[in-house]
Amino acid sequence: MKLSDIGEFGLIDRIAALFHQSRPGCIEGIGDDCAVLEMKDGLTALLVTTDLLIDPIHFIRDKTPPRLLGRKALAVNLSDIAAMGGSPWGFFLSIAVPASINLEYIDAFMLGLHDRATEFNAVLLGGDTTRSAEHFAINITILGTSQLTQIKRRIGAKPGDVIQVSGPIGSSSAGLKMLLESKNPGVFEPLLMAHLDPYPRIATGQALARIDSVSAMIDISDGLLQDLGHICTRSGVGADIAFEAIPRDSLIDACARWCDESMESWILSGGEDYELLWTVSADAADRALDVARASGANRAVSIGTITAQPGIRVNRDGNPLDTGRMGWDHFRYT
Amino acid sequence: MKLSDIGEFGLIDRIAALFHQSRPGCIEGIGDDCAVLEMKDGLTALLVTTDLLIDPIHFIRDKTPPRLLGRKALAVNLSDIAAMGGSPWGFFLSIAVPASINLEYIDAFMLGLHDRATEFNAVLLGGDTTRSAEHFAINITILGTSQLTQIKRRIGAKPGDVIQVSGPIGSSSAGLKMLLESKNPGVFEPLLMAHLDPYPRIATGQALARIDSVSAMIDISDGLLQDLGHICTRSGVGADIAFEAIPRDSLIDACARWCDESMESWILSGGEDYELLWTVSADAADRALDVARASGANRAVSIGTITAQPGIRVNRDGNPLDTGRMGWDHFRYT
Repeated sequence: MKLSDIGEFGLIDRIAALFHQSRPGCIEGIGDDCAVLEMKDGLTALLVTTDLLIDPIHFIRDKTPPRLLGRKALAVNLSDIAAMGGSPWGFFLSIAVPASINLEYIDAFMLGLHDRATEFNAVLLGGDTTRSAEHFAINITILGTSQLTQIKRRIGAKPGDVIQVSGPIGSSSAGLKMLLESKNPGVFEPLLMAHLDPYPRIATGQALARIDSVSAMIDISDGLLQDLGHICTRSGVGADIAFEAIPRDSLIDACARWCDESMESWILSGGEDYELLWTVSADAADRALDVARASGANRAVSIGTITAQPGIRVNRDGNPLDTGRMGWDHFRYT
Repeated sequence: MKLSDIGEFGLIDRIAALFHQSRPGCIEGIGDDCAVLEMKDGLTALLVTTDLLIDPIHFIRDKTPPRLLGRKALAVNLSDIAAMGGSPWGFFLSIAVPASINLEYIDAFMLGLHDRATEFNAVLLGGDTTRSAEHFAINITILGTSQLTQIKRRIGAKPGDVIQVSGPIGSSSAGLKMLLESKNPGVFEPLLMAHLDPYPRIATGQALARIDSVSAMIDISDGLLQDLGHICTRSGVGADIAFEAIPRDSLIDACARWCDESMESWILSGGEDYELLWTVSADAADRALDVARASGANRAVSIGTITAQPGIRVNRDGNPLDTGRMGWDHFRYT
């Protein structure tokens, strides 16, 4: 049997079934943005998450400035800490470097990592360096902390909760398309930068973590529908989404027309925006938006409602939208 | 400038110079087998280490049974926990899988991981799964715990301390040579298995951790001279080694003759034996050996002495041995 027959999430389910053991102190293992481990003081949680990036699957080496690659490599891990409402603490870096990469490239990559590490107060704690035959591989494991009572997980969304996001969705997919186009017009540069240099919403995650009524949270790395789907599956609920309410960059419509792509697909299924998506009880929805905006997510808005009925339905101007392919699966869609 | 000009340890020094920040609670960052983080109770240490394996640099896919690969992938990380005297707790697994690998291969790999995870009480806590273009990449980050007062580090060896190892050295290098030979005689199978299925010395590490007079410890992953060199550098000392005291498999001389290789080089510079090497004050040396042997390392012996004079000198039958190339460097020796 091929991996593509069961898909990335099928593989994860298969691994989780084999390694089903847990142990005291492990509040969350496989199945959320971070693992959550209870510390000995009974108040603090240790958050741990890991991400492997390898060219040319996650980045195209000759189209990605190494400093931006370093910034993004840490940002995508910081975003997982943000999605739990945590604070970054330290990280471990493994790199496998082919002979075709020189020291200047690695130095620039390290400076990019250092940018984001300094900005978000994450200390390099260790790692591993090795050769590779051909491809540049980067694995980062990041540790964060949180108060045990403030952790936001994928489980917890309840029917009637309002669904909110921290900013524009779809820009990264548009930017990736521009990166791959040899003749992309400079006017779409902001979309390109959304793809190359995403911003982890640490402050917003922390601010929302302090609101008890925020019931679940995730970061949008695999696509809006897929990541919202994770919350729905874990929480045993469904969702109604108003497409026109989803914030989008003012350039995205023109960009989609220019390259004859589907703006709707970028917004619903495109990944790597690293905005946060959370659910909050209706009575606290306005406060959650105020708090998110005050934390820097000034385009945070409500985009729909959690339902008891399973499945995700997207409406546009009152009519159901056919959502088709729902997000990114590393093995199934090759 | 090329990476090979500065070598793997030059690169690590360069990274460490850029990321020189530490923070309260971080007892050891870059520069030991594990990072050591003080937990909030003031008694417990969290140990964290990470290793990246990628074919064909660390393993040759069509010559390595996937179940043994899984066992080894976890064992090499468990060995880093052993080298600090810690207890395994949980681990994170990232894999990048090319389309040329099928589900049966991954299932066997996972069973191998599960073997060692169950044996050493390490729970899978999370990870990342992705495609790769061509090569199978595996990154494991493992967490362990220890009493703060019992951690053994690379720093701490003192002149006059006795140097001891937990078992035969060089077998893994001989086994690798057999793996690469198309016509290896079955008689050398035990050497092959030393390479393919190393045993992490968790119980020995824990037993030695309880002896205050054990002053430093490391696992032999890069080669005896290189790993002893790490202890000497960090501790500001040197070492005298008696070559004939180093334990070796009874097959290794015949194997070296059969393939016309240097048995001495395998023993002094070959890596991946994953035996422990530690230093202990002379008055406690016999007790340390008894304890190590009782923990399962029944060929543990003393192999030399720590000196105030820097450098490592190897004597054989009273004459100095020219040690030449000192261990493995991922970038320098390609």
